[in-house]
Amino acid sequence: MSDTGLELRSLITPEGELQLSLTDVPVPTPGPDEIVVRIEASPINPSDQPLLLGPADLGTLKSDASSGRPVTTATIPENMRHLAKAREGKSVAVGNEGGGVVVDAGDSARHLIGKTVGIIGGGMYTQYRKVRATDAIVFPDGTTPKQAASAFVNPLTAQGMVEVMRAEGHKALVHTAAASNLGQMLVKICVADGVDLVNIVRNDEQAKILTDLGAKHVVDSSSPDFRAALVDALAETGATVAFDAVGGGPLAGHILGAMEQALLRTNPAMGNYGTSIHKQVYVYGRLDLSPTTIAANAGFAWSVGGFLLTPFLMKAGAETVARLRKRVADEIGTTFASHYTSEISLTEALDPETIRAYQRKATGEKYLINPAK
Amino acid sequence: MSDTGLELRSLITPEGELQLSLTDVPVPTPGPDEIVVRIEASPINPSDQPLLLGPADLGTLKSDASSGRPVTTATIPENMRHLAKAREGKSVAVGNEGGGVVVDAGDSARHLIGKTVGIIGGGMYTQYRKVRATDAIVFPDGTTPKQAASAFVNPLTAQGMVEVMRAEGHKALVHTAAASNLGQMLVKICVADGVDLVNIVRNDEQAKILTDLGAKHVVDSSSPDFRAALVDALAETGATVAFDAVGGGPLAGHILGAMEQALLRTNPAMGNYGTSIHKQVYVYGRLDLSPTTIAANAGFAWSVGGFLLTPFLMKAGAETVARLRKRVADEIGTTFASHYTSEISLTEALDPETIRAYQRKATGEKYLINPAK
Repeated sequence: MSDTGLELRSLITPEGELQLSLTDVPVPTPGPDEIVVRIEASPINPSDQPLLLGPADLGTLKSDASSGRPVTTATIPENMRHLAKAREGKSVAVGNEGGGVVVDAGDSARHLIGKTVGIIGGGMYTQYRKVRATDAIVFPDGTTPKQAASAFVNPLTAQGMVEVMRAEGHKALVHTAAASNLGQMLVKICVADGVDLVNIVRNDEQAKILTDLGAKHVVDSSSPDFRAALVDALAETGATVAFDAVGGGPLAGHILGAMEQALLRTNPAMGNYGTSIHKQVYVYGRLDLSPTTIAANAGFAWSVGGFLLTPFLMKAGAETVARLRKRVADEIGTTFASHYTSEISLTEALDPETIRAYQRKATGEKYLINPAK
Repeated sequence: MSDTGLELRSLITPEGELQLSLTDVPVPTPGPDEIVVRIEASPINPSDQPLLLGPADLGTLKSDASSGRPVTTATIPENMRHLAKAREGKSVAVGNEGGGVVVDAGDSARHLIGKTVGIIGGGMYTQYRKVRATDAIVFPDGTTPKQAASAFVNPLTAQGMVEVMRAEGHKALVHTAAASNLGQMLVKICVADGVDLVNIVRNDEQAKILTDLGAKHVVDSSSPDFRAALVDALAETGATVAFDAVGGGPLAGHILGAMEQALLRTNPAMGNYGTSIHKQVYVYGRLDLSPTTIAANAGFAWSVGGFLLTPFLMKAGAETVARLRKRVADEIGTTFASHYTSEISLTEALDPETIRAYQRKATGEKYLINPAK
């Protein structure tokens, strides 16, 4: 084992240039309760891309390998510069989560050497990553690093949605961009737990993926009868909370309006203020960066707000988090199985064409970085 | 005293016509703990207008007095008909609150006869209104019905904003359409209680009304440096909750973005997700019925939602409500003084020109119906 490893770094210069590079870093030495993981699989999640690419104009991407290792650059448009102010001049490590094999450990964690683990904490687009042993999910023998790669962000977010639904007194939920890896996990959770879920997808092919998994309510936003079908599904399930990965455009507001329309079938309105039943949309992604627009047709008992995994987990508390993590460990090969369409090396992750491809965040397409490749 | 009184009624026919009329109703007989109030002043609040006018096209208003009393009609546009479905064919009484003199009372409330009271409960655009004695705010002798007319909606909403600010852990607040009657009350409350308030107005004249009342932070949304001035005021006060009467358009989202920008001066961002500090806009009015648009510049710790007085009061509980009402009784001539630009009769309230005038909801203009006129 070499005493250095390769790590992907993202830097935005004070002059407004994004620079992606690979750098040598020492293989870390574990403290008494720490482990060192050889990362073999780390997904490129939508949530990784802001840190990786910043607000760069990807049309200006170019790569130069004349000094041996590639350095990829792109321009930050003048009017976006303020968004990157706080990180200017700082070389940052990227990658929220990853899977790999424990290759070194402190005294209290030596029993983990050789185990496949999933870990979270940033800086996973690297060959060797040190974490506290308690922060890893340890998988049964036979689990591959690739299976362990996406053990946190999607599995905990999907479970978190059902937790929030219950904690806030809703009896069913809505999910958008529902054919995503996360959406497929959510369908499997809801089928297993008997929770009513309304899935919003954008085409037939996506609908079929979900009905094949046992989804009962799938509505296609590209269909001419989308609005009517959504109101029917909402009336049938009583869903009054939605998790929206799209964020921008009219969808979040449209869901609120449709919830209100469904509720009005069986609930009285308070004068002209609509029903008294609270309707909630949580925006947990921003696939669409345009403004969220909310029409004035949801009454007054509604709310739209941001939702992030980390604050949710902090609020949920240690006991809940342990329960959710245990389910991930038990069901990584089934409920929480992820699918990847491309496995790339750290060097390939810097290729302009490849960057443009994973940046599209097309449903069904998912990239995995293998730093050991 | 006659045994009938005149009452304003609003009806939407199944054919899609709004009909406003005056009808004779019996003067009510009080139960043991009830009072009958001769209404002499009832405001036309923005919140009265949806019930009064429905989604009628006011360009089509016409009035016919050939049968003696005026009947005013207007057309509901075809594409708005569904909004009025639930009330079709029902003649409804209108007017949330009013002030008047107690003219009759049941056994346990006879001591109130002759007192000036403020009451709430709908159907106030009428000559005689019966309510439970405990639902009235009883004012000191010398208080006029006009002073008592707006004792609930604005005074309790203004106080409610400060209550919510405190209950949800914010240290200062923002108010839009801030030169309104309600806004002036809020300024006086905040000056008296030492609460930092950022007022958003639309012109110099409105700004002057508020600075004359002692407001420290007034920003003018028509000014070219509005955005910068708002961020400065938010940074100075630390306001992270806003109450927005406008609802539609970019203002609510703009406030969230400006709050985040102010917070970033002294708080770290969570990677690219913005600060961890929750930013809240409550939409309590819809002066603008266009969609609310929220740009993607507020991070993920934000929420926009509807806010209504009645659910707030129910949640706040009896003790809080009693405290808020007591302050109204004590300070009706000062903190909670309202200003009206026109006092009209029930008949005048049916005049098409007058309807169009009060429907404009121009800041500074406020109509009062005097059913005894």
